[in-house]
Amino acid sequence: MVPRYSRPAMTALWTPEARFRIWFEIEAHATEALADLGVVPKSAADALWRWWDTNPAIDVAAIDAIEAVTKHDVIAFLTWVAEQVGDEARFMHQGMTSSDVLDTCLAVQLARASDILLADLDALLAVLERRAREHKMTPTIGRSHGIHAEPVTFGLKLAEAHAEFARCRTRLEHARADIATCAISGAVGTFANIDPRVEEHVAAKLGLSVEPVSTQVIPRDRHAMFFATLGVIASSIERLATEVRHLQRTEVLEAEEYFSPGQKGSSAMPHKRNPVLTENLTGLARMVRGYVTPALENVALWHERDISHSSVERYIGPDATITLDFALARLTGVIDKLLVYPERMQKNLDRMGGLVHSQRVLLALTQAGVSREDAYRLVQRNAMRVWESDGALSLLELLKADEEVTAALTPEQIEAKFDLGYHLKHVDTIFARVFGAA
Amino acid sequence: MVPRYSRPAMTALWTPEARFRIWFEIEAHATEALADLGVVPKSAADALWRWWDTNPAIDVAAIDAIEAVTKHDVIAFLTWVAEQVGDEARFMHQGMTSSDVLDTCLAVQLARASDILLADLDALLAVLERRAREHKMTPTIGRSHGIHAEPVTFGLKLAEAHAEFARCRTRLEHARADIATCAISGAVGTFANIDPRVEEHVAAKLGLSVEPVSTQVIPRDRHAMFFATLGVIASSIERLATEVRHLQRTEVLEAEEYFSPGQKGSSAMPHKRNPVLTENLTGLARMVRGYVTPALENVALWHERDISHSSVERYIGPDATITLDFALARLTGVIDKLLVYPERMQKNLDRMGGLVHSQRVLLALTQAGVSREDAYRLVQRNAMRVWESDGALSLLELLKADEEVTAALTPEQIEAKFDLGYHLKHVDTIFARVFGAA
Amino acid sequence: MVPRYSRPAMTALWTPEARFRIWFEIEAHATEALADLGVVPKSAADALWRWWDTNPAIDVAAIDAIEAVTKHDVIAFLTWVAEQVGDEARFMHQGMTSSDVLDTCLAVQLARASDILLADLDALLAVLERRAREHKMTPTIGRSHGIHAEPVTFGLKLAEAHAEFARCRTRLEHARADIATCAISGAVGTFANIDPRVEEHVAAKLGLSVEPVSTQVIPRDRHAMFFATLGVIASSIERLATEVRHLQRTEVLEAEEYFSPGQKGSSAMPHKRNPVLTENLTGLARMVRGYVTPALENVALWHERDISHSSVERYIGPDATITLDFALARLTGVIDKLLVYPERMQKNLDRMGGLVHSQRVLLALTQAGVSREDAYRLVQRNAMRVWESDGALSLLELLKADEEVTAALTPEQIEAKFDLGYHLKHVDTIFARVFGAA
Amino acid sequence: MVPRYSRPAMTALWTPEARFRIWFEIEAHATEALADLGVVPKSAADALWRWWDTNPAIDVAAIDAIEAVTKHDVIAFLTWVAEQVGDEARFMHQGMTSSDVLDTCLAVQLARASDILLADLDALLAVLERRAREHKMTPTIGRSHGIHAEPVTFGLKLAEAHAEFARCRTRLEHARADIATCAISGAVGTFANIDPRVEEHVAAKLGLSVEPVSTQVIPRDRHAMFFATLGVIASSIERLATEVRHLQRTEVLEAEEYFSPGQKGSSAMPHKRNPVLTENLTGLARMVRGYVTPALENVALWHERDISHSSVERYIGPDATITLDFALARLTGVIDKLLVYPERMQKNLDRMGGLVHSQRVLLALTQAGVSREDAYRLVQRNAMRVWESDGALSLLELLKADEEVTAALTPEQIEAKFDLGYHLKHVDTIFARVFGAA
Repeated sequence: MVPRYSRPAMTALWTPEARFRIWFEIEAHATEALADLGVVPKSAADALWRWWDTNPAIDVAAIDAIEAVTKHDVIAFLTWVAEQVGDEARFMHQGMTSSDVLDTCLAVQLARASDILLADLDALLAVLERRAREHKMTPTIGRSHGIHAEPVTFGLKLAEAHAEFARCRTRLEHARADIATCAISGAVGTFANIDPRVEEHVAAKLGLSVEPVSTQVIPRDRHAMFFATLGVIASSIERLATEVRHLQRTEVLEAEEYFSPGQKGSSAMPHKRNPVLTENLTGLARMVRGYVTPALENVALWHERDISHSSVERYIGPDATITLDFALARLTGVIDKLLVYPERMQKNLDRMGGLVHSQRVLLALTQAGVSREDAYRLVQRNAMRVWESDGALSLLELLKADEEVTAALTPEQIEAKFDLGYHLKHVDTIFARVFGAA
Repeated sequence: MVPRYSRPAMTALWTPEARFRIWFEIEAHATEALADLGVVPKSAADALWRWWDTNPAIDVAAIDAIEAVTKHDVIAFLTWVAEQVGDEARFMHQGMTSSDVLDTCLAVQLARASDILLADLDALLAVLERRAREHKMTPTIGRSHGIHAEPVTFGLKLAEAHAEFARCRTRLEHARADIATCAISGAVGTFANIDPRVEEHVAAKLGLSVEPVSTQVIPRDRHAMFFATLGVIASSIERLATEVRHLQRTEVLEAEEYFSPGQKGSSAMPHKRNPVLTENLTGLARMVRGYVTPALENVALWHERDISHSSVERYIGPDATITLDFALARLTGVIDKLLVYPERMQKNLDRMGGLVHSQRVLLALTQAGVSREDAYRLVQRNAMRVWESDGALSLLELLKADEEVTAALTPEQIEAKFDLGYHLKHVDTIFARVFGAA
Repeated sequence: MVPRYSRPAMTALWTPEARFRIWFEIEAHATEALADLGVVPKSAADALWRWWDTNPAIDVAAIDAIEAVTKHDVIAFLTWVAEQVGDEARFMHQGMTSSDVLDTCLAVQLARASDILLADLDALLAVLERRAREHKMTPTIGRSHGIHAEPVTFGLKLAEAHAEFARCRTRLEHARADIATCAISGAVGTFANIDPRVEEHVAAKLGLSVEPVSTQVIPRDRHAMFFATLGVIASSIERLATEVRHLQRTEVLEAEEYFSPGQKGSSAMPHKRNPVLTENLTGLARMVRGYVTPALENVALWHERDISHSSVERYIGPDATITLDFALARLTGVIDKLLVYPERMQKNLDRMGGLVHSQRVLLALTQAGVSREDAYRLVQRNAMRVWESDGALSLLELLKADEEVTAALTPEQIEAKFDLGYHLKHVDTIFARVFGAA
Repeated sequence: MVPRYSRPAMTALWTPEARFRIWFEIEAHATEALADLGVVPKSAADALWRWWDTNPAIDVAAIDAIEAVTKHDVIAFLTWVAEQVGDEARFMHQGMTSSDVLDTCLAVQLARASDILLADLDALLAVLERRAREHKMTPTIGRSHGIHAEPVTFGLKLAEAHAEFARCRTRLEHARADIATCAISGAVGTFANIDPRVEEHVAAKLGLSVEPVSTQVIPRDRHAMFFATLGVIASSIERLATEVRHLQRTEVLEAEEYFSPGQKGSSAMPHKRNPVLTENLTGLARMVRGYVTPALENVALWHERDISHSSVERYIGPDATITLDFALARLTGVIDKLLVYPERMQKNLDRMGGLVHSQRVLLALTQAGVSREDAYRLVQRNAMRVWESDGALSLLELLKADEEVTAALTPEQIEAKFDLGYHLKHVDTIFARVFGAA
């Protein structure tokens, strides 16, 4: 975890204190269920919850001190709780194994992390929709291979991003469902020492599903799918970040990351406004993607479990969720405040002297009876002149001055082919698909 | 693609002929829609389908020869089709861009590949259920960290695998839905030159969804999610393969990959029956996982598209699906015919001289009034002797001969704690969760 | 292996025939050594080499047919050779294990693949040096964050690439040395059935080192390092490819992939010359990188070997080397014929109206006694006007017209700060470092 | 960074204080060189070093507070130093760019991290050699595919590991040389504002090479190679860790991670000694490997640099080196104190009733004139009885009682084939290769 790429709410999920709180809830709910089943006295569960109602602070240092002796984190925690609650606490954890607590806790943490990430996505989607609607009809050149192709609108670019992150949201919901399971099934998952109804009770209380069949642990294909999904979301972040970086290039400059009016660029060079936020997002995306493979390698644990997954999860549990949370929030901020320059978009659109319309003229000529070969030759010879002038000449003007062209098409007919509206006529259709009916 | 790790049906999906057939379907359906919209003559679509009804062979070499001249695969294909169909074919592809055909074709291929993989998973699930039920009550030692823990059944191990692959099936359904979209939207996705209703028609005919908003291409987050999902499934394959490899170790030998009675092991050593199929599966899982990261890196295409994704997909499209198909089928065969040795499982269970029951005796002693410290000491001193004898001594017999123990528990009470049934009492519950009510 | 991304020499290395030829050499050299040691008759080795001297064709189909019966590739090969050579051939392979042949063969293949790749790098380095010297003093704007910074030369960009690929060459030499080892040590590497001198003899004949200690196999950390190195080289390819893609953008257009004079871009749009080769290289780099992780996962084989690495190597052995060979050759071609536009570079350099020189003016003002705050304000107010004019105004002219500025600096002094030569004065130093003394 | 997987010396390298100390050294050495060149007063360098000689504490909080205002880390640092040193400090950093400091600092950190890792490897190699020599002639069964093959010695297993980590050491030396370069070349690497001799001076003082040609940054192929090398080393750690995990399995139990005599396993089960350290190492290896791909993706920075690499390095710089340092030290501890059970090794060797010798008997029979088919039948029928008895019967005894066998071989001749020494005769040769002449 790198502090500068962390936000408080997500980070708080992964503190020792947060973990201990979840452990307590699991143990207390389990004790409750055991009491209902008559395995332990009802007073035991009551004592736990009574203490909890006092909203006690968790003394992490004290628990750590006990662990230094017992060499066992769950036992240390139980010992400390017993010291606080008193004798009744000895009924806690009966028939359970440490992994029941650890894995169910991880499920709670990842589910809560998912909720934060889902909210992050919602915020991003809202911003994308707002800016997309704002620039729904702002024309800009569409580029394939980095080369000018045909016009689109800036709103369409953002609508594409919206659709992509909406898909990411759905995927994250699936991933959340995949990891939000509860296992309270004992040493090798057979419920030998604990009734399955305890698991059901704890699951219900914590908003988790019951793990249908566990070993000592919750199977790690669930977590692999979860982290793989985060890797996909990170890649979508990289895509939008890359778009912004391209748009901010000196030669393009159709949009820029926000800078405050008083803010200095680099010393004396006012043009030196760098897309550092989106470059940063590109790097963060690499990290979140980098956590996918360790998560996949964690699946093939030996027999009923080995503990190789544990160290991996100590890294990627916090690191992947905290980094992605930060990245989504940063991206939302970038889009929210993105400086968009429609005039420059228009200027770039025009810089090829109207070459983006050459195809339509070609088609019009053939429809007017010119052979395809001739039509191509006519358009090409004018287009080449525009091209060689680096956009100083205008294709429209050249065509209107070309007698072979005007033999087939009137100036008005030629001009009609230089109509941006032609390219934008289905923007409404697409927006309706993405955002629903206006 | 490595031929020895390929099966015909999946491989056939990725041949040039299969691709050209899908291209034709896309073009013909599109022409049909264009005819309905009055853009092209109805006779054009009719001519295409009439030719198609003759079930014509696709002359791949002829198309390649044209491509060698035109340097453009889709134009080469269209030219060849026109040669076959005649003049009416010139109305094909009107307003479309190559990517419309290529990307929609890939969607069809991946959707069909998904269908094969889903069928593979169904076959695997059926075999897992059959073998799980067969060994539902076959006791075997559960192991954590590779060390004997407490008893489970072999059926439970297979039930766990069943639940895992059932999850994989659900994930693959999600992934299939993610990539099964159709884009017929022109050069930069604006429908400038083609009506969106063409896309809707083609999508419906091919069983695809409509891509809500495309650029020149279908966005690659969809494919990233698809290949990431294959990577998760591969990891689950690795897990079950690793289990078999462990079980077949000389010292464990609780199960073996099938070998025919007449089959020689290695020359004179009859014990040399190697788990080569599951070792192979372990390697194949690495490959399918290895394709995840390139797919994730494909997401961030520049602007409305660059073509860097294309070469990646030429590799991983076939390689990931063909390899996973092969691996699933191989795994199904391994489980189907797996030689299971219940006697050896029992022997391994017993080899620790009953130490797996020590915890229950400890609990019984404390419940009989012995202090926890004394109880631990009593069990421990007998357990240590069994341990040091490497299982030659029996914990049960030692305990029954220990006067301090028998002062608290009768021999019958001690014996009762050595009951395997205690560990297996919830197998039914778990099976009902996994396979539904019997 | 994707045929369109393959070149003949590298592909030939990985054919069954090539493999069988290497197998023969290993077996014949080993038989020779065994004969020298008196283990087998000298006539046995002679018979093998006599047959080999006839330059016999390898009948792959015949060997495959035998393998279909024996289920063992090395035995099938030996059987076929025996059929050709006659009775003396029965002395082949004595005391050896299949892995001795397979792993030593892989070492030969990877060493030969390395030689091809080293030659590829040499060709690339030669082209880079030629083009670097050609454009040693061609000024172009240096960009950080995609934003104009200060001038460099195009030759410097290529010198950087040269230095990077020279490092790659050194790394590949290390990687080659790492995998070029010979193991002829028997079933578990103990030389129980074969004298270590056989290994030494075969190693010397094949130009390999002796594996100091093998298990059944050559340890896979060697191969991991090899493929990791290919992944690094691929990443360097991606870097240079990305540079070209950026330079070819419509708005930048400082360089372009070669197109022949008669070659059409896309239909009527003459500007539509796409950097498809370097985009393709970007994708190929992803693939070669994708093979790194499976190679790393291959290291931890169980005990004296398991066969999980084998399937991985059947993919990545050919795929990584063939793809990288193709990519290096393609990159060499791109650089060799790259169209470089110095005028456009100059135009882009100038497009910020001289803002790139603003820092030097600032410094000159302070050195002339203006306070740093005032100097900043003076430069800034003129720079902002240039910036807002999108380069239409000239910073030099504005400064010369600013009385507060001219109070401190003469027009000549100001002009001196707009000297490109200032930025290029150490190009020679750098070239000498990279290419050696001129 | 996960504190429990961290060691102090390596962690200390990555603290803000350590970074600032290196920054100071870079700046002071550079000022020194600038003074030698007459660019700044000699007193400036003297003032800096004089202050440094007082061994001043670095007030990280104060620097952070300045950064909160300036939004620039290097400027904040320079400002703080100037506050401490006084007016002379204003000559620091002249002509330099932030990246000169940052990248050279990273080079120093990675070089120092390499030195720690090299020392870690030396410690591991020493332990491996000691334990290898100790068990040079301890027979144990060699296993391929997890199945008993032929005898090796435990010392050979460790010699293999020694050779592997010796290779890792060489690789790390190469990687260290690759990243240990100094760049002091200004905004875009042209030395426009700083003499190359400054770079040479700083490099010499810090024990770095001069970067032959940099952009704004040191090229990232160097770092990619570095982290890829760490990934290979991690994979070798995983291999040895996996070996220990296998050996500690209940059914194998030929070696165990150390536990102190008084240490409890799991509650009442004395056999429950889990290989948790090596399982942990397996997980840590996954993490270090996971950092390779982000490092490879960092290579293709845009033009003269973008800052996407920076966030990646904030994670993997510390995380990869700290984790690998911890893992190497842990592995060294595991091997140092590994409990090795030669009796159990012998018992496992014998458990197949001598089947490991069956091949030699087969060969002896054929050499005694029995046809290969008959010899195979004779050995096979006895071997199968041993196999079916699960090692209860002895192959040697059965063969000596088989009249057809004794018709060809005397009991002494048969016994001679059951000689372990046959397999161990070249252990000396191998040890001499790995450890040099005794």
